[in-house]
Amino acid sequence: MTNQYPNSKLKIFSLNSNVALAQQIADVVGVNLGKSSVKRFSDGEIQINIEESIRGCDVFVIQSTSTPVNENLMELLIMVDALKRAAAKTINIVMPYYGYARQDRKARAREPITAKLVANLLETAGATRVITLDLHAPQIQGFFDILIDHLMGVPILAEYFEENGFKDEDIVIVSPDHGGVTRARKLAERLKAPIAIIDKRRPKPNVAEVMNIVGNIEGKKAVLIDDIIDTAGTITLAANALVENGAKEVYACCTHPVLSGPAIERIQNSKIKQLVVTNSIVLNEDKMIDKVVQLSVAPLIGEAIIRVFEQQSVSTLFD
Amino acid sequence: MTNQYPNSKLKIFSLNSNVALAQQIADVVGVNLGKSSVKRFSDGEIQINIEESIRGCDVFVIQSTSTPVNENLMELLIMVDALKRAAAKTINIVMPYYGYARQDRKARAREPITAKLVANLLETAGATRVITLDLHAPQIQGFFDILIDHLMGVPILAEYFEENGFKDEDIVIVSPDHGGVTRARKLAERLKAPIAIIDKRRPKPNVAEVMNIVGNIEGKKAVLIDDIIDTAGTITLAANALVENGAKEVYACCTHPVLSGPAIERIQNSKIKQLVVTNSIVLNEDKMIDKVVQLSVAPLIGEAIIRVFEQQSVSTLFD
Amino acid sequence: MTNQYPNSKLKIFSLNSNVALAQQIADVVGVNLGKSSVKRFSDGEIQINIEESIRGCDVFVIQSTSTPVNENLMELLIMVDALKRAAAKTINIVMPYYGYARQDRKARAREPITAKLVANLLETAGATRVITLDLHAPQIQGFFDILIDHLMGVPILAEYFEENGFKDEDIVIVSPDHGGVTRARKLAERLKAPIAIIDKRRPKPNVAEVMNIVGNIEGKKAVLIDDIIDTAGTITLAANALVENGAKEVYACCTHPVLSGPAIERIQNSKIKQLVVTNSIVLNEDKMIDKVVQLSVAPLIGEAIIRVFEQQSVSTLFD
Amino acid sequence: MTNQYPNSKLKIFSLNSNVALAQQIADVVGVNLGKSSVKRFSDGEIQINIEESIRGCDVFVIQSTSTPVNENLMELLIMVDALKRAAAKTINIVMPYYGYARQDRKARAREPITAKLVANLLETAGATRVITLDLHAPQIQGFFDILIDHLMGVPILAEYFEENGFKDEDIVIVSPDHGGVTRARKLAERLKAPIAIIDKRRPKPNVAEVMNIVGNIEGKKAVLIDDIIDTAGTITLAANALVENGAKEVYACCTHPVLSGPAIERIQNSKIKQLVVTNSIVLNEDKMIDKVVQLSVAPLIGEAIIRVFEQQSVSTLFD
Amino acid sequence: MTNQYPNSKLKIFSLNSNVALAQQIADVVGVNLGKSSVKRFSDGEIQINIEESIRGCDVFVIQSTSTPVNENLMELLIMVDALKRAAAKTINIVMPYYGYARQDRKARAREPITAKLVANLLETAGATRVITLDLHAPQIQGFFDILIDHLMGVPILAEYFEENGFKDEDIVIVSPDHGGVTRARKLAERLKAPIAIIDKRRPKPNVAEVMNIVGNIEGKKAVLIDDIIDTAGTITLAANALVENGAKEVYACCTHPVLSGPAIERIQNSKIKQLVVTNSIVLNEDKMIDKVVQLSVAPLIGEAIIRVFEQQSVSTLFD
Amino acid sequence: MTNQYPNSKLKIFSLNSNVALAQQIADVVGVNLGKSSVKRFSDGEIQINIEESIRGCDVFVIQSTSTPVNENLMELLIMVDALKRAAAKTINIVMPYYGYARQDRKARAREPITAKLVANLLETAGATRVITLDLHAPQIQGFFDILIDHLMGVPILAEYFEENGFKDEDIVIVSPDHGGVTRARKLAERLKAPIAIIDKRRPKPNVAEVMNIVGNIEGKKAVLIDDIIDTAGTITLAANALVENGAKEVYACCTHPVLSGPAIERIQNSKIKQLVVTNSIVLNEDKMIDKVVQLSVAPLIGEAIIRVFEQQSVSTLFD
Repeated sequence: MTNQYPNSKLKIFSLNSNVALAQQIADVVGVNLGKSSVKRFSDGEIQINIEESIRGCDVFVIQSTSTPVNENLMELLIMVDALKRAAAKTINIVMPYYGYARQDRKARAREPITAKLVANLLETAGATRVITLDLHAPQIQGFFDILIDHLMGVPILAEYFEENGFKDEDIVIVSPDHGGVTRARKLAERLKAPIAIIDKRRPKPNVAEVMNIVGNIEGKKAVLIDDIIDTAGTITLAANALVENGAKEVYACCTHPVLSGPAIERIQNSKIKQLVVTNSIVLNEDKMIDKVVQLSVAPLIGEAIIRVFEQQSVSTLFD
Repeated sequence: MTNQYPNSKLKIFSLNSNVALAQQIADVVGVNLGKSSVKRFSDGEIQINIEESIRGCDVFVIQSTSTPVNENLMELLIMVDALKRAAAKTINIVMPYYGYARQDRKARAREPITAKLVANLLETAGATRVITLDLHAPQIQGFFDILIDHLMGVPILAEYFEENGFKDEDIVIVSPDHGGVTRARKLAERLKAPIAIIDKRRPKPNVAEVMNIVGNIEGKKAVLIDDIIDTAGTITLAANALVENGAKEVYACCTHPVLSGPAIERIQNSKIKQLVVTNSIVLNEDKMIDKVVQLSVAPLIGEAIIRVFEQQSVSTLFD
Repeated sequence: MTNQYPNSKLKIFSLNSNVALAQQIADVVGVNLGKSSVKRFSDGEIQINIEESIRGCDVFVIQSTSTPVNENLMELLIMVDALKRAAAKTINIVMPYYGYARQDRKARAREPITAKLVANLLETAGATRVITLDLHAPQIQGFFDILIDHLMGVPILAEYFEENGFKDEDIVIVSPDHGGVTRARKLAERLKAPIAIIDKRRPKPNVAEVMNIVGNIEGKKAVLIDDIIDTAGTITLAANALVENGAKEVYACCTHPVLSGPAIERIQNSKIKQLVVTNSIVLNEDKMIDKVVQLSVAPLIGEAIIRVFEQQSVSTLFD
Repeated sequence: MTNQYPNSKLKIFSLNSNVALAQQIADVVGVNLGKSSVKRFSDGEIQINIEESIRGCDVFVIQSTSTPVNENLMELLIMVDALKRAAAKTINIVMPYYGYARQDRKARAREPITAKLVANLLETAGATRVITLDLHAPQIQGFFDILIDHLMGVPILAEYFEENGFKDEDIVIVSPDHGGVTRARKLAERLKAPIAIIDKRRPKPNVAEVMNIVGNIEGKKAVLIDDIIDTAGTITLAANALVENGAKEVYACCTHPVLSGPAIERIQNSKIKQLVVTNSIVLNEDKMIDKVVQLSVAPLIGEAIIRVFEQQSVSTLFD
Repeated sequence: MTNQYPNSKLKIFSLNSNVALAQQIADVVGVNLGKSSVKRFSDGEIQINIEESIRGCDVFVIQSTSTPVNENLMELLIMVDALKRAAAKTINIVMPYYGYARQDRKARAREPITAKLVANLLETAGATRVITLDLHAPQIQGFFDILIDHLMGVPILAEYFEENGFKDEDIVIVSPDHGGVTRARKLAERLKAPIAIIDKRRPKPNVAEVMNIVGNIEGKKAVLIDDIIDTAGTITLAANALVENGAKEVYACCTHPVLSGPAIERIQNSKIKQLVVTNSIVLNEDKMIDKVVQLSVAPLIGEAIIRVFEQQSVSTLFD
Repeated sequence: MTNQYPNSKLKIFSLNSNVALAQQIADVVGVNLGKSSVKRFSDGEIQINIEESIRGCDVFVIQSTSTPVNENLMELLIMVDALKRAAAKTINIVMPYYGYARQDRKARAREPITAKLVANLLETAGATRVITLDLHAPQIQGFFDILIDHLMGVPILAEYFEENGFKDEDIVIVSPDHGGVTRARKLAERLKAPIAIIDKRRPKPNVAEVMNIVGNIEGKKAVLIDDIIDTAGTITLAANALVENGAKEVYACCTHPVLSGPAIERIQNSKIKQLVVTNSIVLNEDKMIDKVVQLSVAPLIGEAIIRVFEQQSVSTLFD
């Protein structure tokens, strides 16, 4: 496609984590992706060449720090250093998936807070703004002293379910653990549905942990929601428990399909009828099984980029 | 009491928010409170005089940033500046209650993240470490680049209930909202009890919001738990809903009894039989109604101070 | 009034310390005050809502850190954080009165330098420039690494006295203490008058302190000048001493009318015929006694804001 | 002399500005000066070699930034860099005379605040503390975020005059300008003397400036005091005016004898009978004319170094 | 082995890049390696657990940022964050091989300076000192504001050749390119040998590049030296050219055996009789071909750690 | 000349090191030099007055930190402070010669890295970009976190020799020491010439150092190249050795003619026929002997300034 966006000071570059999404975003905005190459030397060191002048430009770099997270993060940090030294006016990191977000507090003695470390590293490298999506904890916004725009994935998921007739008392939105109830409540509000919670507990000492269900799911279509599905252990156990306890059907959704290790096999073998995710993380063919539906966040992110560049309110995206 | 602690390089100073707790902590540690005066000039400016040399000392300053939060925070910042300029070796802020902790993310457009601002202000003033208790969100730990020790209030509350015979299936631990389920689960684990959640929702458009209860509470002693009880609106509505829905009795507890505005009146008039809190925030006589039980965090904090000073593991406090 | 200023990227916001002055300044500039609300939660925490987009704007925030100084300072810091996170291009603090300015050095052991702390806090929060008026010590400019424009109040006071016929050898400008002689000399120059100094001293051991007057005041109209009048003890004793020593009449003036505690009563009962001040600090009705004349700094500050925004020389304001 | 101080972790190094004072200070403390060489390459670049290990030591570097100020300042900055990279535990700059202190505010448009710049440069290089004497403005303390100990020279001057019989009403302490009245008042207090001020002013338009004297000097021994005497223009004109107006004799004193350009000639030719100064700045033979008396600050600074090293209160030095 | 070092405040931790070297270093120092685990979650995120208290300790972390460089660097950064938050007194990074060191300047437009970025990232994470070996350019020391101790590998290599009878005019030390002549000169000095240089150049346009040899090698044992041998292209071409031009035998050596991609095959097939390297980078069995001799840097690094801990001069290691 | 450049927001100021070059640069760009004065007070303190408004301007300050290096560096730092406080939009330091560049690493124990210190001082003062020429080590670019544009002097030198018929096998480019071979190779490439190296070594113990020549120079015109010629010891000894070893003629060139101390006399008395330098450092009449040819870098720097201001690629200057 040809460059349609009227202002040549807006540049979008893609790194290696999610080139397809980057191209979609560039199409939404109406620009070509910036010319650059990101290679590995034979010993694994990253070599970045930015192949067009970006002096005085507002540069947006698209990179999810998904697997391989350390490679992707270092690519990003080195790219930011290169952009800074090449005199970019602003360096805006677009990180649809923020890796290490789950290491966001010191839960045990002598643990790192890696999500904060990542924020500090990005600032040190020279980033001036971060645009991200559904942080594991919204407090991660406060890890940054630079600007951060936090986009929401729930509306995209909600819209899909709504279009497919999920609503009201026929369905129940289920949080697979104690920490995700607020998220479940948000989806439930949009679909006007009640909620339930999977409460893993050990009723007495020396008795096996059981998947207790708090709330009424009997005879309903249950929709499990999480922000991240990683090895899919929790969500598939939850799905099976829901069916055993009388749910009519079980669906699952999340913003960030990490789907590592045994995840796909577990989902395939579980009671989950359909798993709805976004393309914040690229899914290779092996992971694109029939049960998985992937929705694009490119329209949302593209619009955010335009608004940031044009200095318009980004918050109106959330109405 | 006389100074018993063997090392004169450990100094504890109290500011004005919670002098009684500071004295208890000093007693636990075995030192006298450091000599200082914190006054107001006629125009309201704070005047601090540290009245003994603290060169080369490890100084601990006790201050909850409870009401009046801005006065207390400024006292703290000015004290830290004075200690820094007086050549303290380390400046350790002991903040049993961290004010502004609920402003921990940008929930709407153009909001501040005041909890992060506070962290930045403390670091700028010269603090080298923070010791605090039950942060509204544990991620606030990541707002700091200096050391932070995060103590837990739930064990103190659990111990009280245990000693009073609350346990097992006779009781149910109830989270008053979606965000507090993890906290409820923690108390429930210690008391081996099930959980329930108050789920405020609007079942259909144009219908009033109802206090839906997710989970089984019928015939049980319900214990509501929150980290902070401020105006007590949520907790008292929840208590009443629990009784209406069949709970036998309702108790409530929290770490931080802000209890502002109509809180005491609401609690007095509610179905709550007893409210159990800690002394992270001082309660004046008006607030010390019969229903309120206040537990001291001084032993916990005193022990933490000794361990920090002696460079022993603080994490073992949590076993 | 309607918005007349031709560039919508210039925004002026008022906080709570001096709304009347902020409105006057906005009128001088020709803009409406920005829409925002600054409220207190029931427990005293400040809640700020900025109710219009300020992305990419040059924002000026009007706030004197006068009584209640800690509340006003925290309002300011939180507002700056909100503006920073809302992507303001520049954040310009207009602080007609700079609270804590008198704590500008370590005069005794283990004192804070609160005026420097305040400067650091403002920079940390994210301010990019400060515009202020008659700092207690001009060296406070050097407490900032960000830009600071320091406006002068003496010309406004001088103009008033000149218009009222004060000049030449009929009058004498009197400094109420040793530190204020330079200021007195500046006013004296504009009015072509001689100076005198109140020299509080103890002539011999065990003898009471006396208000010695250095310089000739006999038969003259004396004009006492200070930058700040707080409790008015010094100035009223000075005034009485001047009359006792032969001054015909005594007037007083200052830029910043703190007027705390017994100030108004002391002035009322003193030999001061008239006290001339500016509106850098708002005076409520109780303080607006007949003796007090208040001059507006809005034209000066408004002009400074326009020049800063238009990137014109601010120094020409001083010619 | 042999090293007597019991702790080998205390090191004192001298740079080139004032080696004699550095040696006196080392003698007071009881250590040998650290071994180092500070040379110039042929093109003028400074070459520093520290010739003994200082790992883990508390290092004190003696350097007045007197003429040649830029050479002396760069020596100091480079020495601090070398000490930092050589793993000194603390780097304490002892700066009896702080050059550029008079450029402490922006008095006119587009002026630097060089005194603040110097503070920033010292901090950037790696200094951890500054010990200095009679800053031109005490607010310069607030230019630093690192520790600063501010010693007083007035007591040393006062003691000299007292020992020589200057006291009470026979004498008058005179400030040579409006800004120095507080300093004059301090000396006057110690000598129980009254004060006077030289008030340069132009009585009417188009009339020459006159040296007006505010205060009574007739028949008295006048002692002029300033912090710095540079070209000696002000002080010698003041001295002559005092004599013309009836002073019996005129003496002058200051802490910092810059004495640049025509200073010595002017003093020689003036009515000043004696000029009393300290050795904060070295005076070469040409400047050590008979009228000049130089008092040593080594006992004061040596004592301060010991107290800093031993972590004792420095403030008690001022009692 | 049992812990012999007398001070328990010295802790050495190993990460995953070079555990064997770390164990050797710990043995030299006389301590056990600190207990920690560094694992990967299923999605590749690093999980670090420090399994003993390190409060108040001087901690040394051994990690070469060799292949996989990005994984090893992120391990290191996260470990430093964990140590910082666990209250280590100092965090000393021991980096026998500094990855990305060759990206040490902007050689072409819009390149990053990754070696500087790495330095900044380490400082941001919280490192207080770096101990490293044979940096690609010694100027990289200046990329750090924290302490850096730069150890030399050439003496270890020289000692090996000396012990094996390499010296004087029988041998020639050869730099494989223009940038390495200084390094060749250093080895030559220790072995009292002359030098030569491989000068790749294109004698005329459109003529193939030739390996020109500057200097006399005829009939000599040639020893090629480089700091890093990566793909071994340059060094093997150089070796072959040396033989073709009359060298009797060719040896090669380097400090850092990256040996990536085709390196081992090239060396195997080249005229190089022996390649002498250190264990700054671990070599797996595939790379430990007969031609390769690996010398240990553990005695050097172990001694440096002890000296740093004991605050003794590290420079004496170089005599 | 009159101001021709179309945008008045571009300002060029000269300090005292190289006013002639600054004027040439201004002429190339098409602007008048900005109005300012840089004076010395009688005691040597620098006084800077910027005599026109530069609010919102991109300011370029021309200053080589050549002899007197400390005076010139302090001038620069103070000017940057003044520009920062006068609200310049960007402050671009144009430093054709970067003093202290040779102190770029810690070669011996307890040495400073003054080249890094200088970089830190410039950043602290407020510089936003540096434009410089032929740094002693290109790694010095990495000492800066702000933007740095590194221009090349070799093409200017090469062009001169080319125009004067130096090329191919008739000539040889000679590096006077081991560290400069890469530079020699660059010039050789442009002139299609071979290279040689002067290899100072001591062939046996207790034998005098000899100037060994590595490479073939017999019968050729030798061109010695260095980045800096300071006292000219190395280069003149090299020249003489070249002639003794059969070179037909010897020329020398460098970018930065420091030429301190005995340099001119040595060159005059040496076998060097011609010394070609640039005007990065001003040469007074004494130094402009017949053998010296000085080429202007003003066209190169002027073009760089325009490209920086216009936000065009600077790298294309190197094609």
